[in-house]
Parts: sequence; structure tokens; C-alpha cells
Amino acid sequence: MSLFSKHESTITKAIAALHTRTFFAAFPEHPAPAVYGETADVDGQAKFKSQLGKKFEELKQQQADAWIGVEESPYTQEPLGISYPSFTVDTLITNAKAAYHVWRKVSAEDRAGILTESLERIKARFFEIAYATMHTTGQGYMMAFQASGPHAADRALEAIASGYEELKRFPSTTLWDKPMGKFNIQLNKEWRAVPKGVSVIIGCSTFPTWNTVPGVYASLITGNPVIVKPHPGAVLPIAIVVAEIQKVLEENKLDSNICQLAVDTFDKTITKQLAEHADIKLIDFTGNSPFGSYLESLPGKTVFTEKTGVNSVILDSVADADKVAANLAFSLALYSGQMCTAPQNFYIPASGIKTANGNLSFDEFAQKLVDNINGLVDNPKAGPFVLGTIQNKSTCTRIAEAEKLPGKVWLKSRSVENPMFKNARINTPVIVEVDASSKDVFSKELFGPIALLIKTKDTNHSIQLAQEMALHHGAISCGAYTTDAAVREKIGDEMAMAATPVSFNLVGGIYMNQNAGFSDFHVTGGNPSGNASFTNPEFVVKRFTWVGHREPVASV
Amino acid sequence: MSLFSKHESTITKAIAALHTRTFFAAFPEHPAPAVYGETADVDGQAKFKSQLGKKFEELKQQQADAWIGVEESPYTQEPLGISYPSFTVDTLITNAKAAYHVWRKVSAEDRAGILTESLERIKARFFEIAYATMHTTGQGYMMAFQASGPHAADRALEAIASGYEELKRFPSTTLWDKPMGKFNIQLNKEWRAVPKGVSVIIGCSTFPTWNTVPGVYASLITGNPVIVKPHPGAVLPIAIVVAEIQKVLEENKLDSNICQLAVDTFDKTITKQLAEHADIKLIDFTGNSPFGSYLESLPGKTVFTEKTGVNSVILDSVADADKVAANLAFSLALYSGQMCTAPQNFYIPASGIKTANGNLSFDEFAQKLVDNINGLVDNPKAGPFVLGTIQNKSTCTRIAEAEKLPGKVWLKSRSVENPMFKNARINTPVIVEVDASSKDVFSKELFGPIALLIKTKDTNHSIQLAQEMALHHGAISCGAYTTDAAVREKIGDEMAMAATPVSFNLVGGIYMNQNAGFSDFHVTGGNPSGNASFTNPEFVVKRFTWVGHREPVASV
Repeated sequence: MSLFSKHESTITKAIAALHTRTFFAAFPEHPAPAVYGETADVDGQAKFKSQLGKKFEELKQQQADAWIGVEESPYTQEPLGISYPSFTVDTLITNAKAAYHVWRKVSAEDRAGILTESLERIKARFFEIAYATMHTTGQGYMMAFQASGPHAADRALEAIASGYEELKRFPSTTLWDKPMGKFNIQLNKEWRAVPKGVSVIIGCSTFPTWNTVPGVYASLITGNPVIVKPHPGAVLPIAIVVAEIQKVLEENKLDSNICQLAVDTFDKTITKQLAEHADIKLIDFTGNSPFGSYLESLPGKTVFTEKTGVNSVILDSVADADKVAANLAFSLALYSGQMCTAPQNFYIPASGIKTANGNLSFDEFAQKLVDNINGLVDNPKAGPFVLGTIQNKSTCTRIAEAEKLPGKVWLKSRSVENPMFKNARINTPVIVEVDASSKDVFSKELFGPIALLIKTKDTNHSIQLAQEMALHHGAISCGAYTTDAAVREKIGDEMAMAATPVSFNLVGGIYMNQNAGFSDFHVTGGNPSGNASFTNPEFVVKRFTWVGHREPVASV
Repeated sequence: MSLFSKHESTITKAIAALHTRTFFAAFPEHPAPAVYGETADVDGQAKFKSQLGKKFEELKQQQADAWIGVEESPYTQEPLGISYPSFTVDTLITNAKAAYHVWRKVSAEDRAGILTESLERIKARFFEIAYATMHTTGQGYMMAFQASGPHAADRALEAIASGYEELKRFPSTTLWDKPMGKFNIQLNKEWRAVPKGVSVIIGCSTFPTWNTVPGVYASLITGNPVIVKPHPGAVLPIAIVVAEIQKVLEENKLDSNICQLAVDTFDKTITKQLAEHADIKLIDFTGNSPFGSYLESLPGKTVFTEKTGVNSVILDSVADADKVAANLAFSLALYSGQMCTAPQNFYIPASGIKTANGNLSFDEFAQKLVDNINGLVDNPKAGPFVLGTIQNKSTCTRIAEAEKLPGKVWLKSRSVENPMFKNARINTPVIVEVDASSKDVFSKELFGPIALLIKTKDTNHSIQLAQEMALHHGAISCGAYTTDAAVREKIGDEMAMAATPVSFNLVGGIYMNQNAGFSDFHVTGGNPSGNASFTNPEFVVKRFTWVGHREPVASV
């Protein structure tokens, strides 16, 4: 049985889900023993630990120039000591160009089968990837498992499904039969989906697989060889993914250089050299806006970016202010605000928020938010696990600076104890009140657990500011609370024009930070927070070119 | 009955045709009285003549700052004397921004109905548009009718169908129902296709409707207001189109500024001012490569270009050399090589071309081509009508310079008489032999009836040069003649990698210049000849942004 036959039903279901956009998941999100096996967690942790201090030797990439690696755990603040094979940019590109001519000739079916098979293999390593993710990104265990494991695999499958559908959207051959009156002109026509060429995927330090695999699988399904360039601080999770892809390629007698890992270090990054190389045709990037915009400006490249934005919460009217404050407190605390979808700017009218029990003043709501955050982070059974740790030391600096902003500091950041990791780098959320006129303060992404409470004239003013921020500085998510249908539509319309998806009235166990594969388009591509979207048609169709040849029937 | 209901079956058929890619045409290409009416031609010509020397007053655009127009007929070499209302860029953009908020709220169905209705109205003016096209572009009558009339309308319908399909590809609402074990999380989700904003379509002088309407209709169907900026030398054909669109908009109580005409003159062009304006989000362009590349480099714009290329003919082996020479002679002569799909570089092995009757030497084939061109252009019943005229005087200069190229001049350009227009600007094709080492000569587009015969080492050398030219200088079409299946596949593969469609072994009444709506993707977007394609999914999906909002079911 071919790998395509083996996985055809999964691929078919995934394509259907793209169009219904209702709930679909091929990979269970809960690390339940009943699903993943009784010993899966223990085994995965052991496997992770056995890798520490050693060479990562699973890649099929031979003759390394050196073995390098600079990862550190934000939980222990110690180096992981793992090293990876390193290669010159020229070697990587020479390998990829040779692999291009192999991979482009593999059928869409076979590519889909091979790639879906690789996800099955990766599934068997979800727990190991989870520990690798914890100890590079600083995420809590549950997020590390879900985001780097099943959710990432679903996003990868989504890219496979989208690409496969587009490759099959036009016929490979047809008879063009044009009546000319007394005779017909008949042409045999054929269409080829020609992959654009070598693709480089540049990863980030906070979501090393979730943000990387959509580009990897979108480029691969459409026939492009891929060079995966992880963030130097978060290599292991995606190295495991690349190793599994390479194994499946090799088992299928294909060049494993179709997917290469390109590791570098902070003091000798290869990203620009790779990106600017004439043979690199496709670039995917997750990271900071200046670098993303530089990549977008490179001539002759097709570039997909997720950069940064300033996400807003618009508070107008609520049914239950306590539930709202609890929900938003969790959104802020979750992975210490280090999600690109985390809220930052909270727009609250000076007159307060309308509730079912009367008006809640600005200060009353602020206090509720503070109380909820304190309640969450001080709960030893929840706080440290929701917060995770701070991935990058510079985020700690940013938090300290936030407390010096002009405006009332409603909540100072502090540390809480993680019972398992005494040395964990933890900073709880800081909340500062900022005047609506201080746009210079709140028009920047303050990456990390930093919330700004912005006192506006009224909800229209809140909407106007949220839209302006999204249009000019980008936004990936927006939360809005209103019980008024007209206000709801106004928010929906104005934020849609700023290409920002809005989560309305979230309470309970669903948060504006969350983003579901096969349903939520992640980043719209329509504002400065990024030019690409997981996974809309544009994310795959720009990776190949339709070329049609034709020939008269009679001449054949 | 809504306009959508009226045209739904046409739209449905058009969408189906996009996917079968076999022959489909909604607008008959022959100017037959039985189809278009006994008096249609005479009436259209009379209508065209009655416009000469007058203001074009059909547009709904009021309060013009001035009336301007500089069109000249290449047939009479006299000004047409037609003037059009002119507006400042600020006025045009202010109007378009107001119209944006009207048009974006019109449903996809209503947009599709209105736009298809406009094509029906334009159909009633195909003959008038044909004469307007003749006397601006210099095309022969038959091409002017077909290219500016039915073929352009089919391309417009193709854009409507593509856009409509994409707008309907994802649901407007869905219930997202995620099982969580003991309960489900239920979200109502909605998706909005948000148009990007004001769109400017920059036309060219040779195909003022055919190259313009795909961008116009693609932007309109996806909800963007359009500013049509024609080439100053070819305004009338597209002015009629815009006037008909405006009439249908007004009849449907919509702002006619949803589609505006922006006329300028050679000495005071507004193109850069328009393109660089911050409120212009979408730009379509047909024209020269430097300006197209400048537009592509503008930050913050979504840009669709058709620029220039060097189209190749690869001659390896043929069944019947006379038929091949006749076919290529016609391709060269058709509208005097002023088609972006016309052949320029003919690669012929030094050892000649293999035929069913033995080998044909380089010189023998060159002479056959010369003889066929002479036979065609000297035939008074065919020559002047196939050649049309030279649109732009600078093309005449280029032809004269071609005769001074280093290499044997196989055929000099001359004039032939057009029996109806004594003053017509006519230059027959020039053919020059060029050494394969003179890449500086044949790596440029020599727009006009200029053919270069390039003597190569062998067919592999021919393929290599054709691919290199396409990759580095662009190519929109390629002709190839071979009776060898392996050579055919090699050409098909190598040119596909250069994103160039190949017409194999064309003889008889079908030419490499021709490009059929609903079947042939025009320009692939994959080489320097342009970044866009009529009409692949990318051509429409980049004109809007998918934005999804969501809200818990319980909270509604």
C-alpha cells in the first residue's frame, strides 16, 4: 500500500475540514495515557534527558563542518549542551538544489503520503518534543505538549491538505476542443504546478514547531526543498521534526536533503546570508517586525511573514465582569504573555463598563483584573504551570521598564516559585494604566506579560484606537466585550477593515490567545503584523507556478 | 429577478470552465451579423465616427477640472480629437474611498450579477469598441474586434468567476463545536472577505481592454473600488467599458465612483502619483519592465504586473517545414509583432532542422521564413489586415536599428499599402541572423516585428538559451517544434522550470501568440515577464483578506 493510500482518508477529511471550518483535529491534544500510551510521558522525558549534553545524531546530514548548539533551559538557566551538525550556506543550498530535481518530480499524491506519514512518526515523539519545547521556550508542560505536538501537527496537516487541494485544482491534461464552424481546433493541453525553488523557514524562540511547520509542509507539499533555520535558542523540538521527515524520505528512497536543518548560533547567524542568496526563492519567517520587513523587501523572493502586533481588548459592556476579568487574567498570564496572540492594550471607557448589575468603574475593573491575576499566579497548583517561564532575559528588562512608564502601576511584576525548578526565570504580569493620548507608549509591542489599561472617552474611542493600532502597527488578535448588537457589529466591521480577527465575549475555558487549525486563520496577512496566514489559499498558491503546455491533437 | 439570478447560469458555467479548462466562451468571437445583428458593424462604426472631435460625455464623473485627450490613429496619423474629463489624484482617491464603503457591503452575488450585466451591455458595443481599438492601437479590424470585444469580455468573466469562487470558498458562518470530554466548547464563527482597498489599473497602448479588464473585474468582484488609468494613447476602448460599468452601478443605486476613469496625457502623467498614494492598496499594470519593477518595489501595495519578455521559438525537428514556416510567419506578422506573446528569438541548430524529407539547413529554413512573410505581407487581401499598423513611432525606430545589428539581414522591413488608409503607419517584419554568443542583442525585448535567427550548436544549446532568457529576462510564450518525444519532454520540463508555457508543433490556424480565456493562463507570474497571471487563484485571492470573528454560543 502506498503512503498516499494509507493516509488518503486523513487527507480527505482534512481538506473537508478546511471548508467547513468546524472543529477538526487529527492529533489528540490531551497527553492522556489512554491515547498516547501509559509510558509515553515517562519515556519522552527520559529520551529528552538522554539527549542533554550530547550530539544530536539523528539527522541524515553528513560531513558536518562543526557541531554547535547554544540552547539554555529557562527552567534551569543552564545550557542544554546539545550540539547539532553545522554546514556552510553554500553546502546547504547546493544540497537543496540537487534535492529540488528529485522532489519536484514526486507526484502530489506521493508527497502528501510521505508528509502525512512523517506526522505519524512525529506523533510518536510528542512527549519528547514537549520536554524539548519546555526547556527551550520556557512554556509550561501542557502548552509545550499541545502547541509543539498535536496542534503543530494539525497545522502541518492543514498545510498538506491546502497544498494538495491546490495542486489538484486544475487538470493535469485536457482536450481543448474549439468549434470553428466547419472544423474544430483540438489541442492537447497539460498543466504543471512548478515549485518555485529552495525554501528557507526561519523559526522563532517561543513556538519552534508550531510557527515553523506550516511553512515547512506548505513548501514541501508544493514540491520545494526546505532548509529549516531554527532560532539558535530553540532547536531541539524542530530538529526532531526534521529528523523524522528525513527518515521517511530515506525510507522512500528519496534524497533526505529535501528537508535540511541549518543550525547557527547567536554570535554567527546565517539567516541573512541564506535569505539573500539568489537561489533562495521562498522565505517563511516568524519573529520581530524590523527583520520581517527587511525580508519582505528582498527582491525576487516570495516571502511569508508573521511579525509582531499590538493586540487590543475593547471593553464596552459585559454580562458578568468577574468571568470577564478571570478570562482576561488567564490570557495575560498564559505563557507569561509571550504569545503573539496575547492581549496588551485594554481599552476601557473613562465612564467604566456597563454590566448586568450596573456600571463598573474603570478602577473597579482594573482592580478585578489585578485580583484575578494575583489569584491565578499565587495558586501554587496553577500559577507556575500557566505562567511557564520567561524565554529571553531581555523580556525581564522590558517588564522592569514597563513599571517605570508614566501612569499608575496597578500591579507590579514579581516572581513565584516553581516547585520543580527552583531556578526558573519567572515574572508575573505587570499592569500599568496609560493615558489614551500616550500613543507612543501603547503603539509598540511590549512582548511579555505586560498589560496597559488605556482610559478612553468612550467605546467609539476605544474602537478607533484599536483599529488605528492594528492598521499602523499590526494586530494578530483582538478581544471585545459587548452586550450591544450594534456595538458588536461596529467592532466587527472596523476591526475587519484592519484585518484583525475579533474574539467576542470569551469567558470560561476559551481564550483570545488560542487559535485552532482548520478553522481560525492565524494572522490574516492584511495588516503590519504579517503578510501571510495559516493556512489560507495564498499561503500555498504562492509556492508554485502553473505552467501550461499545448499541442495540436493531429500532430501527436 | 436579481442580476445574479439573471446571470447565475453563465457564472456557474464559467466557474466550471475554469476547472475543466477546455474550450469555453460566453462571447462569440466572430463579428458575424447572425450573432451580433445585421447593422451592428455599420452602427458601431458610425458611433465611433460620431465621437471623433468631441467630448466623451458618457461617464458619470461630474465636475471635471479639464477635458483632455491626445489619442491619434495609427491608420490616419491624425488626432482623434476626443477629450475626457480629468480630475486630480486627490479627487479620484477621495471618491474611491467613499465608494469603498458602499461596494464592500454589496454581497458577492450582487457584485457578480452587476458585473456580468455590465459585460452584456459592453457586448452591445463590441463593434464601436473594435473601431476605437483599431484607431488607437493600430490593430487590424478582426483582432481589434476579437481582442477588445469578446476575448476581453471572456477574460473579464473569467475574473468574475474566479473571484466569486474564492469569495464562496469558505463559509460566512459556522458552528465550531469542540468536544472537551464532559462538555463541548461551542463557538459561532464568521468569516468576512475584506477587500484591500482602492485599486488602480494601469493600461497599455496595444491592448487597452484585454489587458485591463482582468484587473478591473478581479478587483471589483472582490469588493475593491477601481480607478482605471488608461495609456494616454488608447483611452476610448476602455472609456466605453468604464461608462457601461458606471451605468449599471447607477441603475442599481450604487455609487458610480466604484469604477472611475482617470485620463492623463503624455506630458503630465499621473501614474506615479496615483501608484505611490498611501490609499492605493492594489495596482495592476501592463507595460514596460522598468516601470513594472518600480511598481513591484513599492512598499505596502499588492501589485500585479505584466511586463516584457523575450519569447523564443526552438526549432529541432518538424513534420512539414513549409507549414511550420507559414505558421511562424503569421505569428510574426500578426499585429506587426506588437503582441506580448509574439516570437522574437528563433533558435535553430547550425546543423539545421530535421524534417520528414531529410535535413533542412539553417539557411534553407531562414529563406522559407522570409518567403512566407513576403507571401503574407504582399498578399493585398491579407497583408495589411494581418499587420495592422505600428502603434508607436518609436517602434519604427527600433525596426530601423534592428537592420543595423551585427549579422546577416535576411529580410528588411518595408511598408505595404493599406487600401483603406493611405497614411497608415506600416512596417513589415525584419529578420536578422544573430550569433548565439551575442546575448546582449537577443536578451532584450525588441518590441515590434523583429525576428532574430540564432544559430546554436544543437537543440540542447537552443533549450539552454531559451531557458536562460526566460529565467533572467522573462518570457510569456514559447514555440517549439520537435518530433522527438524525449526532446519534447526536455523542452517542456526546462521551460516549465522557467515558468514559460510552450506551444508545441503549431501549424495551421492556431498560433503561439494566441491565448484562450478559461484555459490558458496568460503570463505565469513565475519569471521576470510579470508577477501575475490571468486568471489563476493568486490573481484574485491577493485582493482581499479573510478575517474571522468568533463568539461563544452561550453568550449570544
